[in-house]
Amino acid sequence: MKISVRHLHDFCAEALTRVGVGEVDARTTAEVLVTPDTWGTFTHGTKALRAYIRRLRGGGVRAQGQPKVVAEGPAWALVDGDSSLGMVSSVFAMNTAIAKAATAGIALVGLRNNCHYGAAGYYAAMAIDKNMIGLSMANDIPTVNAPGARGSIMGSNPFGFAAPAGKEWPILLDMATSTVAGGKVFAAAALGKTIPGHWLVDADAKPTTDPTLFSHAASLTPLGGYKGYGIAFMIEVFAALLTGASIRWQVLSWTFSDPSKPTGHGAAFIAVNIASFIPVEHFKARMDQTIREVRASEKADGADRIYLPGEMEWERREKALVEGIDLPDDAVTSLRGLADDLKLRCPFPKAISSPGAEPS
Amino acid sequence: MKISVRHLHDFCAEALTRVGVGEVDARTTAEVLVTPDTWGTFTHGTKALRAYIRRLRGGGVRAQGQPKVVAEGPAWALVDGDSSLGMVSSVFAMNTAIAKAATAGIALVGLRNNCHYGAAGYYAAMAIDKNMIGLSMANDIPTVNAPGARGSIMGSNPFGFAAPAGKEWPILLDMATSTVAGGKVFAAAALGKTIPGHWLVDADAKPTTDPTLFSHAASLTPLGGYKGYGIAFMIEVFAALLTGASIRWQVLSWTFSDPSKPTGHGAAFIAVNIASFIPVEHFKARMDQTIREVRASEKADGADRIYLPGEMEWERREKALVEGIDLPDDAVTSLRGLADDLKLRCPFPKAISSPGAEPS
Repeated sequence: MKISVRHLHDFCAEALTRVGVGEVDARTTAEVLVTPDTWGTFTHGTKALRAYIRRLRGGGVRAQGQPKVVAEGPAWALVDGDSSLGMVSSVFAMNTAIAKAATAGIALVGLRNNCHYGAAGYYAAMAIDKNMIGLSMANDIPTVNAPGARGSIMGSNPFGFAAPAGKEWPILLDMATSTVAGGKVFAAAALGKTIPGHWLVDADAKPTTDPTLFSHAASLTPLGGYKGYGIAFMIEVFAALLTGASIRWQVLSWTFSDPSKPTGHGAAFIAVNIASFIPVEHFKARMDQTIREVRASEKADGADRIYLPGEMEWERREKALVEGIDLPDDAVTSLRGLADDLKLRCPFPKAISSPGAEPS
Repeated sequence: MKISVRHLHDFCAEALTRVGVGEVDARTTAEVLVTPDTWGTFTHGTKALRAYIRRLRGGGVRAQGQPKVVAEGPAWALVDGDSSLGMVSSVFAMNTAIAKAATAGIALVGLRNNCHYGAAGYYAAMAIDKNMIGLSMANDIPTVNAPGARGSIMGSNPFGFAAPAGKEWPILLDMATSTVAGGKVFAAAALGKTIPGHWLVDADAKPTTDPTLFSHAASLTPLGGYKGYGIAFMIEVFAALLTGASIRWQVLSWTFSDPSKPTGHGAAFIAVNIASFIPVEHFKARMDQTIREVRASEKADGADRIYLPGEMEWERREKALVEGIDLPDDAVTSLRGLADDLKLRCPFPKAISSPGAEPS
């Protein structure tokens, strides 16, 4: 169902302020959630707001939480998120990394006492306008199998990467380290569909096409087997082992656990100042040329285009900013439910509301 | 065929000094090449030395090349490799990152005018004894397909990650961003075997099980499709776009191209000083506990153990240091050929030498 970016943003901000979040934090969070919707990454957009607000009302996410730097040097910092909204803490941490990288050339900021932070790519992309390269990564409660194991060993531990170009779209990568993100499995379950046989393994570590088994009786498969498992472990090291955040099963589910308890997620953010290494215009010219060469490569049969990482997302966003976002049914259902929960005017035409499926 | 670590190291160092490499650089290079052999990562070990020496004799790799810092700040540096051996430049660059991270908390060092650097994990693992986390990444000539494309778009752009533990083995990840490394395809071709259908696509971007088509008429598949393609692009940004190194098809093949020409590879190295973020003993205790919990997880049917990233490699190394390395036939053939080339005493019992297959 179509909705304008402005209208969706305002609804999200209003919902957040209604449960005690300050105006600035509410606008920040709305921006972090609406942006992936404009990219077409609906699994990590405003669909999740209802679950975040459940935790805000429960107290596990603190509406007035204030992330702060608890230790720092010229090129690094450790931030305590104070169990504020994951979007608020993460934007604060990435801004800290960007500020430090401006003079240090690179900065790494660790974040503990975070909650689910949503779309990894959003924070990475914050670096683009500063002529920096951005990276973000986060841990989560285990939902992913590992080679040789039964059950879930690592979180889907996502990461985001972004780098500016000149006249071309920035490069943007936002990915879970599982074969697919859990949100895609929940979405298939909500639509009553089966899934490809390589996405999930059941409780006996055997492949299954039944998305309804996830996550209580099935685990996502790691991307490419031991490689995805290894990358997820690396992200756990940066986001949790190093920061003092909760590790693996210490993390609470942001969707299913008692909403009065902080989830304890961790995250890490890196910014690299391009100008330290190479004149920015030179870097951007190299990016543009590389992008154009890849795009102009010979196509496979049946392929119209070779997309650059993020190109599809930026094109969808450009269209969404003009024409509005065409939100899928599960997101509309979730937002309608949220409007009911808070007795807010629903941003969509009337319909029978239902609880809907929650994303992960 | 069995050979002691010491014997193999000495042979490699002798071969390198024979073609004009100084004693220290020869020992460094021997160490970087023998270590992956002790890990069982034979595709990136001493098997490659013959090809490096071909380039040293051709002049494309400079035996007396001297990597140097050409620009720097407290947390970053840019190194020009001076077309020296990739192992010499890369050890220099990683040591620079480690030295800077000791005071800055994190450091990023870019490297241009490099050659093929071998095993990404070696450089990452250099951080372990310094109580640091290490990362390395490098670009290479395209051998990997991308979604929608025919032919090769990105290099197999590998990366390595390492982090110390306490009583447990360090975590170590060393991976190409293709489904499998090109070296595995060359090894299958040398043994006359077919390969699984998802490793390669032919010149029409259709799956093939024929390893002999690689790399002139086939491309590796990217790990997990767009994800591996995106990670490879990220590594190209860090290793090449940012450093001024050759990009994609500007890189020359270290095995097939005119050995009188520098290959122009780029690389990037990151070190993170754990003590900046958390007391080292606390970090190591967290690592040990995490490792033990993962190991103790429930096993899948038919699995005896759940391996941690790198555990298999460290166990093989421990055994190899005592019992010697059991080098596979293609590596033995390559080293025999090298002994012939340089009229050195061969470290293996006599056999008819043959040119053998070169790794990638």
